[in-house]
Formats: sequence, C-alpha cells, structure tokens
Amino acid sequence: MTDFFKGLNQVKFEGSASKNPLAYRHYNKDEIVAGKRMEDHIRPAIAYWHTFAAEGGDPFGGRTFDRPWYDKGMEGARLKADVAFEFFDLLDVPFFCFHDVDIAPEGETLAESNKNVRAIGEIFARKMQSQRTKLLWGTANLFSNRRYMAGAATNPDPEVFAYAAGQVKNVLELTHELGGENYVLWGGREGYETLLNTKLGHEQDQMARFLTLVIEHAKKIGFKGQILIEPKPQEPSKHQYDYDVATVYGFLQRYGLEKEVKCNIEVGHAFLAGHSFEHELAVASSLGMLGSVDANRNDLQSGWDTDQFPNNAGEMALAFYYILKQGGLGQGGFNFDAKVRRQSLDPADLLYGHIGGLDTLARGLKGAAALIEDGEFDTLMDERYAGWNQPGAAAMLKGDRTLEQISDWVLAENINPQPRSGRQEYLENLVNRFV
Amino acid sequence: MTDFFKGLNQVKFEGSASKNPLAYRHYNKDEIVAGKRMEDHIRPAIAYWHTFAAEGGDPFGGRTFDRPWYDKGMEGARLKADVAFEFFDLLDVPFFCFHDVDIAPEGETLAESNKNVRAIGEIFARKMQSQRTKLLWGTANLFSNRRYMAGAATNPDPEVFAYAAGQVKNVLELTHELGGENYVLWGGREGYETLLNTKLGHEQDQMARFLTLVIEHAKKIGFKGQILIEPKPQEPSKHQYDYDVATVYGFLQRYGLEKEVKCNIEVGHAFLAGHSFEHELAVASSLGMLGSVDANRNDLQSGWDTDQFPNNAGEMALAFYYILKQGGLGQGGFNFDAKVRRQSLDPADLLYGHIGGLDTLARGLKGAAALIEDGEFDTLMDERYAGWNQPGAAAMLKGDRTLEQISDWVLAENINPQPRSGRQEYLENLVNRFV
Amino acid sequence: MTDFFKGLNQVKFEGSASKNPLAYRHYNKDEIVAGKRMEDHIRPAIAYWHTFAAEGGDPFGGRTFDRPWYDKGMEGARLKADVAFEFFDLLDVPFFCFHDVDIAPEGETLAESNKNVRAIGEIFARKMQSQRTKLLWGTANLFSNRRYMAGAATNPDPEVFAYAAGQVKNVLELTHELGGENYVLWGGREGYETLLNTKLGHEQDQMARFLTLVIEHAKKIGFKGQILIEPKPQEPSKHQYDYDVATVYGFLQRYGLEKEVKCNIEVGHAFLAGHSFEHELAVASSLGMLGSVDANRNDLQSGWDTDQFPNNAGEMALAFYYILKQGGLGQGGFNFDAKVRRQSLDPADLLYGHIGGLDTLARGLKGAAALIEDGEFDTLMDERYAGWNQPGAAAMLKGDRTLEQISDWVLAENINPQPRSGRQEYLENLVNRFV
Amino acid sequence: MTDFFKGLNQVKFEGSASKNPLAYRHYNKDEIVAGKRMEDHIRPAIAYWHTFAAEGGDPFGGRTFDRPWYDKGMEGARLKADVAFEFFDLLDVPFFCFHDVDIAPEGETLAESNKNVRAIGEIFARKMQSQRTKLLWGTANLFSNRRYMAGAATNPDPEVFAYAAGQVKNVLELTHELGGENYVLWGGREGYETLLNTKLGHEQDQMARFLTLVIEHAKKIGFKGQILIEPKPQEPSKHQYDYDVATVYGFLQRYGLEKEVKCNIEVGHAFLAGHSFEHELAVASSLGMLGSVDANRNDLQSGWDTDQFPNNAGEMALAFYYILKQGGLGQGGFNFDAKVRRQSLDPADLLYGHIGGLDTLARGLKGAAALIEDGEFDTLMDERYAGWNQPGAAAMLKGDRTLEQISDWVLAENINPQPRSGRQEYLENLVNRFV
Ligand SMILES: [Co+2]
Ligand SMILES: [Co+2]
Ligand SMILES: [Co+2]
Ligand SMILES: [Co+2]
Ligand SMILES: [Co+2]
Ligand SMILES: [Co+2]
Ligand SMILES: [Co+2]
Ligand SMILES: [Co+2]
Repeated sequence: MTDFFKGLNQVKFEGSASKNPLAYRHYNKDEIVAGKRMEDHIRPAIAYWHTFAAEGGDPFGGRTFDRPWYDKGMEGARLKADVAFEFFDLLDVPFFCFHDVDIAPEGETLAESNKNVRAIGEIFARKMQSQRTKLLWGTANLFSNRRYMAGAATNPDPEVFAYAAGQVKNVLELTHELGGENYVLWGGREGYETLLNTKLGHEQDQMARFLTLVIEHAKKIGFKGQILIEPKPQEPSKHQYDYDVATVYGFLQRYGLEKEVKCNIEVGHAFLAGHSFEHELAVASSLGMLGSVDANRNDLQSGWDTDQFPNNAGEMALAFYYILKQGGLGQGGFNFDAKVRRQSLDPADLLYGHIGGLDTLARGLKGAAALIEDGEFDTLMDERYAGWNQPGAAAMLKGDRTLEQISDWVLAENINPQPRSGRQEYLENLVNRFV
Repeated sequence: MTDFFKGLNQVKFEGSASKNPLAYRHYNKDEIVAGKRMEDHIRPAIAYWHTFAAEGGDPFGGRTFDRPWYDKGMEGARLKADVAFEFFDLLDVPFFCFHDVDIAPEGETLAESNKNVRAIGEIFARKMQSQRTKLLWGTANLFSNRRYMAGAATNPDPEVFAYAAGQVKNVLELTHELGGENYVLWGGREGYETLLNTKLGHEQDQMARFLTLVIEHAKKIGFKGQILIEPKPQEPSKHQYDYDVATVYGFLQRYGLEKEVKCNIEVGHAFLAGHSFEHELAVASSLGMLGSVDANRNDLQSGWDTDQFPNNAGEMALAFYYILKQGGLGQGGFNFDAKVRRQSLDPADLLYGHIGGLDTLARGLKGAAALIEDGEFDTLMDERYAGWNQPGAAAMLKGDRTLEQISDWVLAENINPQPRSGRQEYLENLVNRFV
Repeated sequence: MTDFFKGLNQVKFEGSASKNPLAYRHYNKDEIVAGKRMEDHIRPAIAYWHTFAAEGGDPFGGRTFDRPWYDKGMEGARLKADVAFEFFDLLDVPFFCFHDVDIAPEGETLAESNKNVRAIGEIFARKMQSQRTKLLWGTANLFSNRRYMAGAATNPDPEVFAYAAGQVKNVLELTHELGGENYVLWGGREGYETLLNTKLGHEQDQMARFLTLVIEHAKKIGFKGQILIEPKPQEPSKHQYDYDVATVYGFLQRYGLEKEVKCNIEVGHAFLAGHSFEHELAVASSLGMLGSVDANRNDLQSGWDTDQFPNNAGEMALAFYYILKQGGLGQGGFNFDAKVRRQSLDPADLLYGHIGGLDTLARGLKGAAALIEDGEFDTLMDERYAGWNQPGAAAMLKGDRTLEQISDWVLAENINPQPRSGRQEYLENLVNRFV
Repeated sequence: MTDFFKGLNQVKFEGSASKNPLAYRHYNKDEIVAGKRMEDHIRPAIAYWHTFAAEGGDPFGGRTFDRPWYDKGMEGARLKADVAFEFFDLLDVPFFCFHDVDIAPEGETLAESNKNVRAIGEIFARKMQSQRTKLLWGTANLFSNRRYMAGAATNPDPEVFAYAAGQVKNVLELTHELGGENYVLWGGREGYETLLNTKLGHEQDQMARFLTLVIEHAKKIGFKGQILIEPKPQEPSKHQYDYDVATVYGFLQRYGLEKEVKCNIEVGHAFLAGHSFEHELAVASSLGMLGSVDANRNDLQSGWDTDQFPNNAGEMALAFYYILKQGGLGQGGFNFDAKVRRQSLDPADLLYGHIGGLDTLARGLKGAAALIEDGEFDTLMDERYAGWNQPGAAAMLKGDRTLEQISDWVLAENINPQPRSGRQEYLENLVNRFV
C-alpha cells in the first residue's frame, strides 16, 4: 500500500442527497437500468495516461503536478502501477486502458522498450488476479517520440513504419495476454503538417497496410478483442486521416476492412471535427461501427483537445440512446480519456474528476433508458417515416421504379406534397423530461 | 439588346500594367500555359443564380438589388435570359451553369414549373447557337421551396422524394439537350436540423436510391456528362450528409456508386468543413473523384457560406497544382459560385467581381504551371518517399511481410530510424517563388 | 378572439411529473425562490419578431410558415396584434418586446411608417389596459431595409443617419408611452462588410453621436427606462462594432457614456464572439453593465445566429448565479430572442418553444438559488483570494508599494510561492449538485 | 565562432529572379520605399524564444530539435547567445527580442534567476557593441513556471504577484540598459481556466495595479521605451483578459492608463480572436494604440496558436497600409513571433523561415506603398464619406442638432436616402493590382 491516496477511502454510492464530495451521487454500479447492471452498461475505464502519466504541462508551461514516480525509470513505473491499482480500487471501476509508454519508460532500443513494457505487464497480470479491474483496451503510443514526428504507419521513412509495427506487436500481444477486450489505434501523427511535402495516396496505402498487418496478427494470436480506430480531425497534426467516423468508414471500405474494425468515439474529437457527439454515435451506429467511447468533454470555446471530464448529462443521455438502441457497446465501454486541469494538483482531484464523470454518465444512462421506456419518442420517430411503409413508396425505395415512372406519377396525379411540422421544440422538451 | 449593361464593352486582356478596371490583367484566354490555352485549363463558368437571380438579401435584410426582371414572371425570365447572355458575351467566358428555379418562375404544379423551365431552355438553345457560351452544368434547386424544408431525396415524406425526382428528370434532360457537360447534385436539405426527428440510416438509403435513379436515367437518355456531388458540411441544414469529399466517397462506396460520380468542390465549403481547399482537391484527386470546382472564397471570420469571388492567387495555385498533376479537370471547369456583396448594387459590380475572380484564377494557373515546370517541388516530394522504393520496403507495403517478420527484423537489426527535416519553410518559399 | 390558437388553453404549472406537453413542469410563476416570486426574478418576455413576424426563411429558402396575417398590410398588423396578445395570455407571461417593423408595415415615407407604428401602438395600449402583459423593451429595426445596408448611425451617408434618428425617436417615444422599462439598440449593420471602404474612426464617432442623441432625448421626454446596447460580433455585417461586452464598455468609456448605458446580453451572441454566456454576464456584472438578457441558445456546430430556445439548465444556472449575486436584473428581464425552427409550422410549436425555454430558465434559477443558499461555493471563492486581505497584500494592491519595494521584499525574504489546487473538478461537481 | 551554422553565409538580397534559397528575393534593406529605407519601415526582429529556446515539442510529443546548448545550464546559455548573434548576423537584421527565461536558466530563487539573466545580459551588451543588432523589446516570462499556473499579476496568491513584480523589475531594467526600444507584457496566464474559481473584478484590479507599477518604475529609471500589451484571446488560459485590442483599450481606460500603453499586435492572435489582422491594426490605429507587431501567421484550420512564418503578402500589404497611414510604427517593429515546424530540424530551416517571412513583409510593404502612391484608394474612401463634410451633416455629427431636430428635418423634407454601391469587388481588384 502506497501512501499516495492516504486518508481517502473507497468511493461509494450515497444517493443524490449526499453532500459528500467523495461519494457517488448517481452512479450505483449494481442498480438495474433497462434490465442490466449500471456498471455493465457503462463499463467505465480509467485512462492510465491522463491519470498517472500526465504531468500538467501545456504548450506554454511545463509540469505542475508533483508525483513521487516521476523521473525514476522502472522503479517509478512500479510505484505508478501500485498507485494505479489502488486508484482503480478506490473508485471501484471495472476497467482500465493504457499505452505502452504510459506504463514503462522507453529504452535505448525497441527490444529494451518492449522488455520494460512486459515487465510492468507482469505486475499488472498479478494485480489483476487479486483485483477486479480488467483491461478494456491497450494501445501503442506512436506519436510522442520524435521518430514519429512525420507519422508512424504513414511516415515517408519505411523504417519508422517497421519500428511502429514492432511496437504494436508487443502491445497487442500484451493486451491479449492481459485479457484486453479491445485494441485501439489512434493516429495522431497519421496525417500531415503541410500538403507541400505529402503524398496523400501513398500514405493512405501505408496506413491500410499497417492496419491489415495488425488485424492479421490479432487473428493469428487468437485475440478475440475488437480492433478500434479512434477518429480525430487534427492535433497534433494539422490534418489527420481518421478525421471523423464517416471518413474512417470510407477508408476502411476502400481497403476492404470495414467488417474488421469499429470506432472508438471521443466526445471532444467529435466536437473538434464540427460534429455533436451524438452525431458521431448515430453515424457509427447506422454503419455498424459503434464500438466504444472515450468519455470526456471539450471546452466549447477552445479550439484544441481539452479532454475534460464529462459534466453534461443531457449530452450523455443522447449518447446512451444510440447505445441502448443498438443493444449496448458489446466489448466496448466508456474510457475516461479525461484529465484533471493542470491546476488540480492534489491526489483527491483525480477522484473528483472521475466521480463527477461517472455521475454524469449514470444520469445520462438513466435518462436514455427512461426515454426509451416511455416510448413516445420512438413512436414519433416511426410515425414521421411511416409514409415509406406504403407499398408505392416502399417499391420506390427498393428500386422498383425508374426516375421516369416516378416523374410520370407526380405529373399524372399532380402530387403536391404538404410540409408537416418537424416538432423540434416538442421533441426537445420531451427529452428534457428525462434529463 | 437590353440596356442593362449600357455603356459597358467587352472585357479584354490588357496585361498587368493596365489600370482599366474593366480589363483583364492576367486572364488571357488564348495564352498557352503548360501546353494548353488558358481558357481550356480553367473552363470558367458564370453562375446564373448569384449573378441574375440573387437579390442581395441576407438573414437580417431583404432585397438590395433592383433589377428590371424582378417580380415579372415569365416576361422577367426572358429579359433575365437576354441580360445573362449579354453578360456572358461581355465577359467572353465559355460556360454558364443554372438551377431550374434560377431561370424560370415556379408554377402551381410540377408540370407548369417544368414547362416554364423548358420555355426558357428553348431560348437558351437559340442563343447558344449564335453565341459561344456553353453549358458547364445544370442542376435542380431542391432546397428553396418549402416542400423541401425537411429534405428532398431524404424527406420523411415519399411524395417529396417523388416530386424531387420529377424535377431532376426535367433538368437533367434539359441539361442533356443543351449539351451540358456535367450534372450537379447539391444536397443543401439532405441532412438534418435535429437528430431528434431523424433516422440517419433510412435517409442514407433514400439518398442512395435517388442518386441511383439519376445515374440510370442519365444513361438511358444517353447523357455523356459527368454526374457530380457538391459536398458541403452544413447550411442550410445543421448537418448535411455530403459533409466533405471523404464523406461523399464513403457514401458512394457503400452503395456501389463510387465509379459513377465525382465531386464538384467549392472553396468555401472546404473551409466550412474545417479543411483547406487544396486538401479537398488533393483528397478527391487521390480517390479519382476530382471532377469540377465551384470557385469562390469564404470570409475567414464568418461561419456561414459567404460565396465571395476568389482573390487569393496563392490558394488557387495550389489548387491548379493538383488539377494539372491529374491532367486537368476533363469535362469539369471553374464555376464562379460567387456573388457580389449586397452593397454592390451596380451592373458594373457584376463585372468587377468576375474580372477579379478570373484574374486570380489565371495567376494561380500560371503559378502552378511554373512550379511544375521548374521541377524541384516534385523532385523533393519523390525524394522524401524514395525509401519505399527499396525492395524490402516495397515488399512490406505490398503485403509480403507479416507483423511478426517486420518486428523481428527491427529487433534483429536494432533499427533506430532517424528523423529528417520536413523542410516546410523551404517548400513554402519555393512555392512563393511562383505566386 | 381569433381562432389562431383554437383548442389551446392557458399553460399552467403542473409540476415535474406532468406529461402534458402544454404545461409548465418547472416554471411556477408565484413560487418563492430566494425571497422573490419566480416571475419577478425572470421577468420573461415574448419577442414579437421571432414569434409573429418571422416567416421561417433562411438563406437558402423562403417562407415556410403560413400565417393569416402575412401580406395584408395594416389589416394583417391588427390581426397579428390580436394573436400576439392571445399568445401572451396563453403563456401567462408578464412582458413582450418589439421592433417598429415587427408590428406595422413600413410606409412610403418615414411619416407614414411612423404613423403605422403609432396606430398599432394604440391597439397595444388598449390591450395592455385589460391584460397584464407589459412592455419590457422597444427597439427600432435599423437593419432590414436596404437603406441601412451600409449602416444606420454609421452609414457614410448622413441622410441615413438622420432617417435612423427619426425612426428611433418614434419608437423611443412609443416605448415611453407604453411604459416600456428599457430601450434597446442592436447594431446589426453598425460595422463593416469590408475594411476597404470603411473609416473606422469616423464611424465610431457617428455611433457615439447617435447614442448620445438617444440618451438626451430619453431624458428630455422623461423616459425612466434603461438604455441597453446588445453586443454581437458579426452577422449580418462581417464585423460589428458592438462585438462583445468588453468592446462595448471600451466604446462607452471613450465617449463618456459608460454610466448611461448597460448591456442586453444574448446567449448566442456570446457564443459567436468566442465566449461562454456566463463569461459575458460575469464581465458585464463586474463592470456594472449587466442590464438584461436575450435568452436563447446557439447551435454548437453552426457559425451563425441560430436563436434557438434555451434548453440547457446548467448554463442558465451559471447565468442566474451572476444575476442573483448582483441583486437581480432590475428593470431588465429575460427576453426570448428565440424562434421555432422553420420546420415547426404549427401554432402549438410556438407554445412548445416558449414552455421549454421557461422551464429551462426556472430550473436554472432554482439551481443558482440553491447553490448560493448552500454557501460552500461562495466560501471557497472567498478563501481562494483570502491572501489579498492580509495587510501587506492589501497595501500592494492599493498602490502603497513600488515595484522596487515589492521586488526587494521578494529577494529579501526569498519568497517562493507554492501553487495550490484550483479544484476545478470539485467545483464542477459542486455546481452539478444543484442543476 | 561556433560551428552551428557551418557552411552558411550571410543572406543577401539577390532579387526576385534568384533561385538561391538562402537569398532574399524581395527584402532589400537599403531600398527606399515611400521615402525611407525598407529596414527602417519594417524594423524586423528575431524572437529568441522560438528560434533558440524552443525544442519542437507539442502537446502530444516532446523535443524534436537537437541543439548543442540544451540541458547545459549557464554554459548552454552562453553557447546559445553566441549562436543567436551569429544568426542575427547571418540574416542581417537590426533587432531581436527576448524573455528572461529564454536567455538563461531559472535558478532556485528569484535572486539566482535574476543573476543568471544579468550574466547573459552582459554578454549581450558586449556583443551589441560590435554587432549592429539592437534590442526591439524585452519581456518577462510569467507563464511557463508552475508558480504562474493560476496567473501572475492576477494570481489569487499575492506572493505570486510579488514574485512576478520582482521578475519584471529585473527584465525591465535589463531592457533599459541594453537600449531596448519597448517593453512588452503578454498575459498568457492572466485570465482563467474556469469562472467557477475566479473573481473577475478582483483580478482586473490586480492586473491594473501591476501594470501601473511597471509604468511607474519605467519612468523612475528613465526608460524611454514604449510599454506594450500583446492581446491574445485564449491559450494557454481558457480566457485571457487581454482578449483583443478593443478589450485592452477598455481595460486601460478604466484604470486611466490608455495614454501610457500601446499594443503589440500578433497576426495569429487576431485570427484566434475572430478578427482579421488588418482589423486589429485598424482598430488600434484609430485609437492611437498601434505600437508594434508580432509577425507570423496562424494555420487557418487549427484552433490554437501555430506561430508560423508569414507567407501572405496580401495580408501584410493591408497591414502596412495602416502603418504607413499613421506614419510608421515609431519605436515598434516587426518581431517574428514565429517558429519553424517541429519537423524542420536543420539549422538551415531557421534561415528559410526568416527569409520567407522577410520577403513576405517586403512584398507587403511595397504593395502598400504603391497603393498609397497611386492614390485612387484613398480618394474613393474620402468620397464615400464626403457627405459628412456638408454643413448640416457636420453640425449633426458635432452635436449641434437634437434627435428631435433631426427627425423633424427628415419628416419635413421627406428625406429618403438612396443606397450607393459599396464597390467591394472594385476595391479588392484595385488592391490586388499592388500585391
Ligand atoms: Co481519446
Ligand atoms: Co482528446
Ligand atoms: Co457551390
Ligand atoms: Co457556397
Ligand atoms: Co437578441
Ligand atoms: Co441572435
Ligand atoms: Co506574440
Ligand atoms: Co502566437
């Protein structure tokens, strides 16, 4: 037992009347909502990077946090692992996620880096035997090291591609061995700083090849997890190829990979791409691509990725609506890709962030479940499109009418369609009843 | 001869030293650039809507222009056609573009509307025999009438779908008969105002069906033109399905239409989607989807579609770079989807806008041609990716190596890739030599 | 009694369990919150323009609504007034707001326009005797008519300035006679489309002169209402001089008017200016400039003014926090500068929009009152700044120390300040307890 | 002589036909433009921070550059100074700028930090005797150290205020001793991360006090330089108090400081605040606040401060228009607050960036001078406002007419102002003649 969280006890559900800032007010893991335990709906995960590896820096200032494991190599990494599992226990969450470089220091060579990662992986494995927290997903950091400054899979230098492949192989295998339920690829450097030095088509081919290698290796080693791509429009690169869900879908189709991969959708990335979060979920769900969620929020006035904890229950209710309608996230979950602000220096701040986030998710889940149970919302939706169930309309949609036939019908019958109210305000009020 | 442009003469090329505001200073249609007449590279077109049908309104104010053809029904439409062709002649441009509702007033029924459009179409046909201006593309306005408020192809009401089909059939056939080289679909209402009343998947199926009907009818009537989709992220709808080139590509693939359709890329729409114009061209070109261009610019501080005339030669040079590299726009061209500001009341203002736009395009074209002729830019690009031509790298990209083999190689050889300068500033300076 | 709202009854408070879409679920006008009736806190107003004069158009489409008073001149205006007061009664709200051109058609001359406005004003006066709805504010529309395309007060043509003065005089006097509690100036055309034709300094002088004329006339006629400027950054103009609260404050100071004028702050305008709504309120309140609110919301993905009904209770709670802390809005109120979407065609939609908006405001108010009553929030705020109460710090802030003295003290005492947690997540959770 | 720039010679003007990437093509320091040497117009400066202290990191990756002076304490600082002055000489520029922490490592105490800064300052002083490069401005970095995470002058902890005062005193005095012509304050942390823990009014008072201390100390030590505030809307803070020029002006007036301080306007900051660069210059100039410029550009698609080198001559021509019209920048200049991209690893990249930037400024300057010399632009501007020179209009603007008198005049004369074309496209074409 480290003394990092000294004096702090496991966070319990105390109900909405509680004034205890270290209690859950809405997140009650065993409460049944829409036929399932709340925890089994949300499947919340702690992100190792923001919570244990981040230092509070920003582009205009350095480290503000002061953690006992900083600058201590493998010894620090072991202490960090101890603290991490204590934290999982304090919050009583079922999952965590990590990048290789979050958990262990990079070595001089890939071999040494991989060895370091495996050493900590063994510690994880032991801890996971005695604790209930499991691995939601693992991932390789292919963006921080300077070797990746011009891309990993999409680097003009094939050696970088190869190095990245070696790094992913290690993390993918570790993820598999730890029972990880997903493997995520986020391509922060897979894009460009300037088109002036970039062959877009070549880089797309490289990216598709890389992804194919990962999929094939996953199959070969018997990994049953889901492969996920996490879209983001830009930052760190000026433009990233995995801009948003629709773009990822087009890319996957082009290379015949759309059945192999789903999306891990981050709230803030949706916003930065010019979309609402619910939009990205709705699109992904309609394409069979909604795999998992990176829960956070973006500051509405900042043009960069702020990765704040979710605190908008209404936004989360709309998200859970799409998730519940598709029968849940399956192997996916809600990973808190969220960090406390750089002024939030205290260990307790890490708890407050996650508590607030989980309570927000719980409110969203309950709202969505109630909305669906009420039924009016879905009924109104169906009624709006009911015309398409008529035989003539259905035939038209199926492809049994030509343009000419349709036009002839309009002219012959003098069809003059009359607009009906879209009822947006009514629907907004209806949703607000449950939020 | 109307007296609308009384006192104004045909605009001629006078060279960059000219101070005549009604002369071209850079656009010299017969000048040979990169082996082709300038006009044949640019293939400029006048947009009927902005130039003749727009009234200078905005969301906070009504009509500012005062044109003799307003509010005069078919008589006004005929006068407008006369003025339009006089304008084409004044500017000496080879193409124009139109929507059905730009050229003729809507009637009480589709039949009457179509008849009106056809009547003006006959006038166009006659004028086109004696004048050199041809039709770059036609299109149907499926967004202004209130019947389309909730979508045309994607309307919840199948009658609206059918009505739209009838409208497109008429314009597509007219476009064909007038020798139009392309047919464009812009889906301003194909999207949603609120997800709360929207079945995304159903609407996508509708949109694909509609597009298929159009493609099939085009084939049936022998239309040899290119079918084009014009992406735009939003406005008038909150979200439009044809968000950007990558999204359109994914949609087309999903329904097996990616060989049938290309994109008409508008400068301002690229900007509103969070992209540079050259990005959209580069993406489209890499996918074989770069068909045509809507030339304009968006105000850099306004979050809506400002459709101003292009005046940034550097931006246009990057555009022409991609166009020249793919061998030109083929049947496409540069349509000025641009309008004079609502304070630009005078007939002469219509000329100033187009003159400035054409001169900007001419400067861009000449810059791109010079950049390519110089050769260093392309050489540097090739050198940056040269590593991929090595046999081992080529095999890796082709798929002849597994993830394991690649990883083993990195570990065995202790591969440690060294970053090389991306030379962005060097390349920017190089490009600036030609702009 | 018109039949416009036929079958719809007065909206009553039914409590949060109600499923009646035509009932208030949170807005309970007589409920005492923080020592005052809810209605007296909120002072809600209906905006005549969006509710009765708007037609459902947008930049890509025309009128979608179909109201019996359209295109009927003064007869239509009288019918519109009847419907408006029936609507005020249906919603049971205490206030409304109007522009001159909302209530009566413009005539051929200023005299005729003013006469029309006064004729409807007399109808208002009669209705206001028998109904409880009062005038929150009046304003002149100095932006829709083409004469104002290049500005009203800031027009390069002094005749336009004069015409605008004549229009304001009429509305100001009518506002006074109707017992209006405020007079608002929104300068949608007081800005520029392009700097290339604009003398910024000259236009600022014009604007200050115009404002001074209005202030002096208000005093002369004995108007006791508050003069308010409504900031907005852009749209319709590319740039508007009343960009945001801070800009308005600088302008007022420059011309010595900062004691005479306050701000009417619109939610959506704050967002378009790159600020949160609560930021604008906080700034205004700290400057003694927070006078009134235009309640609405902006779509978070649209770059133009969407004027949707508020539906974010959390945002409104932060707003009411600043309002309650300054002792309320005084003569100001919450004007719903919000419109139903153009697809919301039905009379009932007008009710749904306002009901949802009022319920949102009520939740916000109650949340803010509870937050203040709880007290922890304010206590934490005070504690954070408590160091400044120490004598040395207070002296430094008061100006009793020179830079040199302060520096000497730091060097002598080897001052090395230690950062303390900003507790953002804790505070967010605390606020969420009350929302 | 270090070997950092080994093999690179002084950059000379070679004219626009030159293909030498290490020559100026437009910047010809001694060329007379508008009656003055080009260098004396532009007064270009190298920024020590981006050029010598930056490491190529970004929020998702660390150091990419590899400079021999990194991690070497005072010895590194001395080497850095040698390289810096070699660079000034290579580029042949007359000015540089620095923060204290750019030039020397921070110590354990303020005393030690100041001593380090002074030691390097002495080296600068010696070098400046033998080289022609002078100090455009100095500034204190009050944002990178964790002590400033919650603000410097606006910190809730008065000890931080004091520490910052001690730091500024040292840099201000060094700036004075080195003959610096300006002193700049940029308040990256003077703002807030969340309003939830912020007393806006208190922090404004602190900021005004701090600024007053600096002004008084500058006077006391006989500093003749200009005090400059550099506006920026956000980043690193969510909101910064010096949002834009208009906001700074309002703040200065409020505390009676508007005669003491001018603005240093950064291109990219203008963009991030929702303005064009020329807007900020025009506003500042109209208020007598245009003091100096931070030359760079922001990526048009990135929502954060990208600090790229200027490469848009048209934008710079509009900037120089305002500068020339006010008679130049006086003691100010053009500081390249611009950094090579993190992939631009080579020493030569530092040269390419500045060469491209200087050539862009030179083109802009020459364009503006030619525009003014041509005269038509200014003539058209004057003509547009000529109506205000008429006696009646002038009286109205001067305040010799009441609202009532003006209204009476409009009614009596039946004034009906007719709009005139704003000629935006004409003016854009006119400007393009000179760019
Ligand atoms: Co993420
Ligand atoms: Co993120
Ligand atoms: Co277009
Ligand atoms: Co457009
Ligand atoms: Co408003
Ligand atoms: Co608004
Ligand atoms: Co700067
Ligand atoms: Co900057």
